[in-house]
Amino acid sequence: MKMTLGEVAAAIGARLEGDPDIVIRGAAEPAAAGPEHLALATNPRYAEALGRGAARAAVLWEGADWRAMGLDAALFVARPRYALAHLTAALDPGPGIAAGIHPTAIVEAGATVGPGAAVGPFAVIGAGVTIGRNARIGPHVVIGAGAALGDDVLLHAGARVGERVTLGDRVIVQPGAVIGADGFSFVTPDKSAVEAVRENLGGSPEAAAPQAWTRIHSLGAVRVGDDVEIGANTTIDRGTVADTVIGRGTKLDNLVHVGHNVVIGEDCLLCGQVGVAGSARIGDRVVLAGQCGVSDHVTVGSDVIAGGATKIFTNVPSGRAVLGMPAVRMEQQVEIYKALRRLPRLFELVRELKKAVPKSAKND
Amino acid sequence: MKMTLGEVAAAIGARLEGDPDIVIRGAAEPAAAGPEHLALATNPRYAEALGRGAARAAVLWEGADWRAMGLDAALFVARPRYALAHLTAALDPGPGIAAGIHPTAIVEAGATVGPGAAVGPFAVIGAGVTIGRNARIGPHVVIGAGAALGDDVLLHAGARVGERVTLGDRVIVQPGAVIGADGFSFVTPDKSAVEAVRENLGGSPEAAAPQAWTRIHSLGAVRVGDDVEIGANTTIDRGTVADTVIGRGTKLDNLVHVGHNVVIGEDCLLCGQVGVAGSARIGDRVVLAGQCGVSDHVTVGSDVIAGGATKIFTNVPSGRAVLGMPAVRMEQQVEIYKALRRLPRLFELVRELKKAVPKSAKND
Amino acid sequence: MKMTLGEVAAAIGARLEGDPDIVIRGAAEPAAAGPEHLALATNPRYAEALGRGAARAAVLWEGADWRAMGLDAALFVARPRYALAHLTAALDPGPGIAAGIHPTAIVEAGATVGPGAAVGPFAVIGAGVTIGRNARIGPHVVIGAGAALGDDVLLHAGARVGERVTLGDRVIVQPGAVIGADGFSFVTPDKSAVEAVRENLGGSPEAAAPQAWTRIHSLGAVRVGDDVEIGANTTIDRGTVADTVIGRGTKLDNLVHVGHNVVIGEDCLLCGQVGVAGSARIGDRVVLAGQCGVSDHVTVGSDVIAGGATKIFTNVPSGRAVLGMPAVRMEQQVEIYKALRRLPRLFELVRELKKAVPKSAKND
Repeated sequence: MKMTLGEVAAAIGARLEGDPDIVIRGAAEPAAAGPEHLALATNPRYAEALGRGAARAAVLWEGADWRAMGLDAALFVARPRYALAHLTAALDPGPGIAAGIHPTAIVEAGATVGPGAAVGPFAVIGAGVTIGRNARIGPHVVIGAGAALGDDVLLHAGARVGERVTLGDRVIVQPGAVIGADGFSFVTPDKSAVEAVRENLGGSPEAAAPQAWTRIHSLGAVRVGDDVEIGANTTIDRGTVADTVIGRGTKLDNLVHVGHNVVIGEDCLLCGQVGVAGSARIGDRVVLAGQCGVSDHVTVGSDVIAGGATKIFTNVPSGRAVLGMPAVRMEQQVEIYKALRRLPRLFELVRELKKAVPKSAKND
Repeated sequence: MKMTLGEVAAAIGARLEGDPDIVIRGAAEPAAAGPEHLALATNPRYAEALGRGAARAAVLWEGADWRAMGLDAALFVARPRYALAHLTAALDPGPGIAAGIHPTAIVEAGATVGPGAAVGPFAVIGAGVTIGRNARIGPHVVIGAGAALGDDVLLHAGARVGERVTLGDRVIVQPGAVIGADGFSFVTPDKSAVEAVRENLGGSPEAAAPQAWTRIHSLGAVRVGDDVEIGANTTIDRGTVADTVIGRGTKLDNLVHVGHNVVIGEDCLLCGQVGVAGSARIGDRVVLAGQCGVSDHVTVGSDVIAGGATKIFTNVPSGRAVLGMPAVRMEQQVEIYKALRRLPRLFELVRELKKAVPKSAKND
Repeated sequence: MKMTLGEVAAAIGARLEGDPDIVIRGAAEPAAAGPEHLALATNPRYAEALGRGAARAAVLWEGADWRAMGLDAALFVARPRYALAHLTAALDPGPGIAAGIHPTAIVEAGATVGPGAAVGPFAVIGAGVTIGRNARIGPHVVIGAGAALGDDVLLHAGARVGERVTLGDRVIVQPGAVIGADGFSFVTPDKSAVEAVRENLGGSPEAAAPQAWTRIHSLGAVRVGDDVEIGANTTIDRGTVADTVIGRGTKLDNLVHVGHNVVIGEDCLLCGQVGVAGSARIGDRVVLAGQCGVSDHVTVGSDVIAGGATKIFTNVPSGRAVLGMPAVRMEQQVEIYKALRRLPRLFELVRELKKAVPKSAKND
């Protein structure tokens, strides 16, 4: 990657002051920046670190005196994180999958690979698969028979896409992700102990007779919308009869688990190690922080935001921020957490009160 | 897949009313069903949706008037979910691994592959491995030297089976699962801070001198019983000296972690993202819902059922339903959860009471 | 593996009594040991089991009368677990990756593989990669362009090392681990609902206008120190601008998630399914038990020990043992857990007290 500072400014929508011809080959933290790095210093607390680096240009906070800092130019942006998205996109060298189909890749009969696509070594593309234009398929990727992938998809090394799965345009799949494993769905000949316990929220699991689990096969697939991103080693199971669905623009982090028949809406964020059990439904623009869990058959409304490790056992209405295990409104959970820390003290207090209350009164 | 409705009825043990010769090529939800789909509508609430689909036949609830719904035939079953298991098994086209050993697969010296087995592209089968009859080994599967696999096993793309691991008959391994990674077992030359903290349940970790971790190698393997299923990207570590064991009929969902030396009994269900730490013992017919955790060296009795995200730090006797962090009896935890929501109110109440109790009384 | 008992004693620093010439080919639990196994019986409770096995030699507890147990020799060690580390290292046959570069492996232009290194089938080594002496690269490993690996590294089957990642000497990577996936970092054009909720710890997420997520690309890499071990299917994301860092001697278990920009110190243990969110900082010698979580941008000091499933939402000072969700001092959490079980009873008690307190008093 090599750009002039003027080109960078145009790419990220920044106001440029100073020399537009400085060559930029990457971005760096202020103290670590070399002369061809654009230093990122959008907060005055980075001022001192800039002096330790060798950058000639930086993205600075509004009002910064770049000349006094020894720079030859500066960029100013309205929303630094948003500018960073465009800046990093401009400077990203990409995963370097060579153009064309690698001679070791296997493309089975009836599969079609779009113009401009790159397919890496040892990839296996099943019968009848369709892959769109300019797709990039990394090494060791496996795409099952009948799957359909859109334009500009990027599948990193070792991603596994199951039979009949569909991926929209611009979908990105990180290494090792599995889209279209079989659902975890088993049934006993007669009512099982776990069915009884769920009905009663307790009771004695021993009551049921021992039985083996019979598999319910997954005939459905997974349907992934445009602009979805799926994290490393994340797993998405196929539906039993209908498809499991990930809506347009939704992003899944690493090691996320999405069970069979789940339907997730658009523009959601599911952070690292989130688990969504079978047949749950999640609305649009939902944010589940790391290690959240959603029980099976639960509905989470649109615009719900769940804090870290929140466990959602029951439906959550749209537009609510929730936290905790089990999930309650975030403000309420913050109060509960405060109360928990004072709980041993509360026990003492009540013991004291009990002593203090006259016996006669207790017999009222 | 193409069957007549009569054949389907026989396969799933259903009572057939109407035309037995209707051709069935798949199953579908009522509204999405085409004329060669068997619609699944085992509850009266699906009646309306049936009208929107184009199915000629459906699995219906007992007493449903299929003629009035415009169908040409209907199936009736005693336990719909159990019938679904047989129905989906009958209609599942399977993963489509071509018969025989793919020319790109590597089968090392002394390995034997049973009759009827299929081995996919780029699979690597180590020296001395034995694989049973009709086994299906997907693309990119790696099987380490000396491993022994039973009849009818199905290993999906990219499953990794370590050296000397044994898999019983009919074991299914989903993509990316790792069976036989090294155990996570490290030791310091002298007593470590974490050993001290575990003894005291607290204290000052600083007390111990800094020390590096030395690896305890895993000489054992993993022994997986018949009819076990192992989910996508799940990991099972080998034992230190003896084998880690997964009992017959037990099913592990995706992203489950089973530590070294763990022994799991028969017919258990471990749902998505469950973690079982080293040397834990789990009985038969145990159900651990999603994101449960079991501490190392803990014993969980048979027929235990743990609700979502339950963390089991201490032994659980057989036949108990548990919930929460830390795990307590399910009924008790439900009471605790209710109490938690009212906890801030309880603090207020006690404050009021404290004010109300006369000073003199407090000095009693 | 074949050693004499005398060689074993020397390797593990044990005191030998009896015949030093017994041939040892492996270790075993006392009851399962054969005549060429060294039985491990460092506690008197194993005495009886020794009688059931066929071992001629055992590692015994201090003071044990090995002759009376029918053994021909015995080893005595000061710290059995530490001795076990050396014993298992001596007896480990290793993963059996054949010496040299397998003919199916792809080594791209400008990559250099050190002397004595072994590269397994279907491995892909990108342009400009450097690999040290005696490295062992398993089957299906992918190493991205420009990565640099030290001496004696061991990468098991299907490990994925991204572009420009660096691994120190003696790093071990278990199967399926992904080092250098893209960070999970997205931004909306204007302030998002989740940003608002984080500022207020609650509020109404609906307030914000719907917006799509724009990706912040990851230009940094991952830098892994000497003697680090990375578990099966664990994922470590690359940094945005600087590198994500795993310090020397730190061990990561299976299915661990390390987000972008995280910096982890030296000699830490992160057990199974731990998640560390983006930009968190973790000191030296930190132990996070299974399923712990650390929020983004949080600092965890050195020598911190967190019990199972602890969720760390805020900074933790050095030298503290913590437990629970949210994390508090371990001793305090133990008290809270006790109090929780008695919480429903506390409610009853307060209700009784309320009744007992005279109305007049309440009006004071």
